[in-house]
Amino acid sequence: MADLLDDSEIEAQLPDEWGQDGDEIVRTYEFDSYLPGVGFASGIGGIAEDAWHHPEITITWGEVEVRLTTHDAGGITQKDIDLAERFDDVYE
Amino acid sequence: MADLLDDSEIEAQLPDEWGQDGDEIVRTYEFDSYLPGVGFASGIGGIAEDAWHHPEITITWGEVEVRLTTHDAGGITQKDIDLAERFDDVYE
Repeated sequence: MADLLDDSEIEAQLPDEWGQDGDEIVRTYEFDSYLPGVGFASGIGGIAEDAWHHPEITITWGEVEVRLTTHDAGGITQKDIDLAERFDDVYE
Repeated sequence: MADLLDDSEIEAQLPDEWGQDGDEIVRTYEFDSYLPGVGFASGIGGIAEDAWHHPEITITWGEVEVRLTTHDAGGITQKDIDLAERFDDVYE
């Protein structure tokens, strides 16, 4: 099981556009319309399955909010940071 | 612009598995795992674009929550009921 990160580790490692919200890390990705967000959600859904680490993804018009946490550790771990970076890599 | 439905109209027309939450109608669809939910979200995202009426869709492991409202009317209209029925039709 992945170890929980402490606040200083999270601050040091969290990618720029991500924030911390309690036991989760959160980013809202922006799009020009609805379907590009739907497509992005599908793409990161596949990456999540590949990593076997499954975020909450919320699609609205022009935005996709992604929330990551490590349920079995009860908070934020390296798995969350690593997956956040992989999602950012496919958002261009 | 679509007319707002009153409470008795909503109660009469809302599909069985949907509920009302303030100005929105809501259904949670269930799946055996993550990717089937991601695929369902993509499918209804396309239907939503076709209808030009865009729900909030939240994907978690095994569940997809869908929220519909008619923003320009400030509440629930026939457009929401009609789209809920179309989503239910592709969930089998």
